Amino acid sequence: MTCISILTDFGTKDGNVGVMKGVIWGIAPSVQISDLSHAINPQNIREAAFVLGRAAPYFPRGTIYLVVVDPGVGTERRPMAAEMGPYRFVGPDNGVITRLVDHAVEKHWPQKYVHLDKPEYWLHEVSHVFHGRDIFAPVAAHLAMGVPLDAVGKTMEDPILLDIPSPIQTRDSIIGDVIYIDHFGSLVTNIRSTDLQMKKVLWVEVSGKRVEGMVETFGERPPGSLIALFSSTGDLILSVVNGSASQVLGVEVGEEVRVTISPIRQEG
Amino acid sequence: MTCISILTDFGTKDGNVGVMKGVIWGIAPSVQISDLSHAINPQNIREAAFVLGRAAPYFPRGTIYLVVVDPGVGTERRPMAAEMGPYRFVGPDNGVITRLVDHAVEKHWPQKYVHLDKPEYWLHEVSHVFHGRDIFAPVAAHLAMGVPLDAVGKTMEDPILLDIPSPIQTRDSIIGDVIYIDHFGSLVTNIRSTDLQMKKVLWVEVSGKRVEGMVETFGERPPGSLIALFSSTGDLILSVVNGSASQVLGVEVGEEVRVTISPIRQEG
Amino acid sequence: MTCISILTDFGTKDGNVGVMKGVIWGIAPSVQISDLSHAINPQNIREAAFVLGRAAPYFPRGTIYLVVVDPGVGTERRPMAAEMGPYRFVGPDNGVITRLVDHAVEKHWPQKYVHLDKPEYWLHEVSHVFHGRDIFAPVAAHLAMGVPLDAVGKTMEDPILLDIPSPIQTRDSIIGDVIYIDHFGSLVTNIRSTDLQMKKVLWVEVSGKRVEGMVETFGERPPGSLIALFSSTGDLILSVVNGSASQVLGVEVGEEVRVTISPIRQEG
Repeated sequence: MTCISILTDFGTKDGNVGVMKGVIWGIAPSVQISDLSHAINPQNIREAAFVLGRAAPYFPRGTIYLVVVDPGVGTERRPMAAEMGPYRFVGPDNGVITRLVDHAVEKHWPQKYVHLDKPEYWLHEVSHVFHGRDIFAPVAAHLAMGVPLDAVGKTMEDPILLDIPSPIQTRDSIIGDVIYIDHFGSLVTNIRSTDLQMKKVLWVEVSGKRVEGMVETFGERPPGSLIALFSSTGDLILSVVNGSASQVLGVEVGEEVRVTISPIRQEG
Repeated sequence: MTCISILTDFGTKDGNVGVMKGVIWGIAPSVQISDLSHAINPQNIREAAFVLGRAAPYFPRGTIYLVVVDPGVGTERRPMAAEMGPYRFVGPDNGVITRLVDHAVEKHWPQKYVHLDKPEYWLHEVSHVFHGRDIFAPVAAHLAMGVPLDAVGKTMEDPILLDIPSPIQTRDSIIGDVIYIDHFGSLVTNIRSTDLQMKKVLWVEVSGKRVEGMVETFGERPPGSLIALFSSTGDLILSVVNGSASQVLGVEVGEEVRVTISPIRQEG
Repeated sequence: MTCISILTDFGTKDGNVGVMKGVIWGIAPSVQISDLSHAINPQNIREAAFVLGRAAPYFPRGTIYLVVVDPGVGTERRPMAAEMGPYRFVGPDNGVITRLVDHAVEKHWPQKYVHLDKPEYWLHEVSHVFHGRDIFAPVAAHLAMGVPLDAVGKTMEDPILLDIPSPIQTRDSIIGDVIYIDHFGSLVTNIRSTDLQMKKVLWVEVSGKRVEGMVETFGERPPGSLIALFSSTGDLILSVVNGSASQVLGVEVGEEVRVTISPIRQEG
């Protein structure tokens, strides 16, 4: 049974997510649908790309990511579908796919992109403001029913990708940014566990505070402590145990984070 | 596979929506359930009627709308089920069905209403405060399993309908109201695209602001612009590009919206 | 078809609930998944226990409760699975199961607990911070596919249970606490309808306000009235009709509630 995982900035009040599920089940009655998130900040493509990138690897082979964070709906931005290794994507060509592409590149997965231009796979009437319902949901449902990617659009080579800044590495430090603040108020940075392999973290600084060393999990320090650790997807994060680092520090996305390191010599 | 689409004012914290799904799956184990919305403002029947009315036409034939916005639970208000063309409804007889009925009338669909009075299709114990769990969810599940409408209650002829004000049309203007504010802060009015057919919109006024003409989609104006356009369901809406019209204008439901028109003569 | 009902404090923005569903469907492709709640206050085990306890009896036989309110993740707190009568549980051994155990005791259901220690039923890589994804979701999915409880862990006898205070009963009063505030702002107390059997409630006092007698449902009093009634799960609650008792009274969890009674003599 194919799974469609939906990611939008629609919120859950207006019923538009429900409508997309209705459209999907009208075409593909037994598909499993997972809500990935509908609380992306309005029009925040960067945030959607982050949430999609970290979640995607945990879904079953064949999953279709249906993404509707689409400020350019109705303009010349292209509606798009893609295959990358075991996964598929349907949504706007606006960069929201960036981290999924990064993941595909890392895994050496083949990639294929099409520009959706076959109205026979859309609803009969297409509005200028809700391609999620009129184009993306029906195309995702048809893909789930076995329609091949080639049938829903013509090949395109150059999907738009966001420019995602990497941390800066010096001899004794790594300087990155807060790129996301999660539900618990943890500050998620663009510094990855792979950036710190074979290095000893002396301290982490953010917003004038210094955290000594890193811990492995929340329970290692008493409630209220500011800690640095790796998230479940390998990002360096700053958290307050049983509290909100974002609230305690007053920090938002974009804040600089500096890790001071002492290189570990690899033996042997 | 039948789809049940649930609309409530329950929020998602207390677990009551999950409980209704548990009750449904206990009776109809493989039914698909879609959350239409659980963020209707508490007891706001009018808002629920709007969200239901605009979403309903996009669900597959046979879908059952299970609506629990029910301030009169446990009083004399009747528990009800209905069939209207390809769709079914289960919920309180308090007007929440109004726009679905309007849609049925427009489509010349047959309509049939029953007053739920057959406890054999309910849970064994019925509370005075949660008919969603005890009456409506089990009845919806039995309908999904093929029980006919006639079996779950006796025919009734006069469901309660809300009085929904139409816009006022003069020779050179149409005057309506803001009837809903969506997740993006757009002001949704009761003026429909059909009200403006064969007419040229000169400007739209709300809260002392004037918007010249109408656009087709958000991307036609720079971020921050106040625009007037038709929503994906044909309602005239006022939006701020990449922003919130509600916040920028401080406007709430009930605010007057005036469209100044120049009639277009139809040639031929 | 088995149902898995998920209860977390994850919120719905970050995508972590969706990720757990992806993991489950990768192992058990056709399982039904219900979101019980993801809005439990962060790390609030007591609140999660309450929401789980009141919802559980309404799910179909065989349902698996997958609970991830887990401040001790990665520490020595045990990952656990359980069977109690027709229901199963997977989650941390931190007391979140307490009210489900109370229910099982009341129903004389057999209970069986295992300490999850069989990594062959987990994801290949287990993080220190997200056992919901790496241990609990895959174990729940394997149980749904028919793997017996004994296979996923070794028997344990002593799950941690919360100390949940009972109301104090005197000759002419029952004194309890507000233990939960629901979506509508109703104050849910630890006083149960069974505590008041064969007794006549004279008045209920909270935060300096007195409510005369009890009603059966909301519609018995005009909007704005403060009322006392039994919830759909038999808890004494205080509500404001079409309003929020929590907001009107400024009351939070922990506030004392006093019921003054006049014992009814049972005849015969």
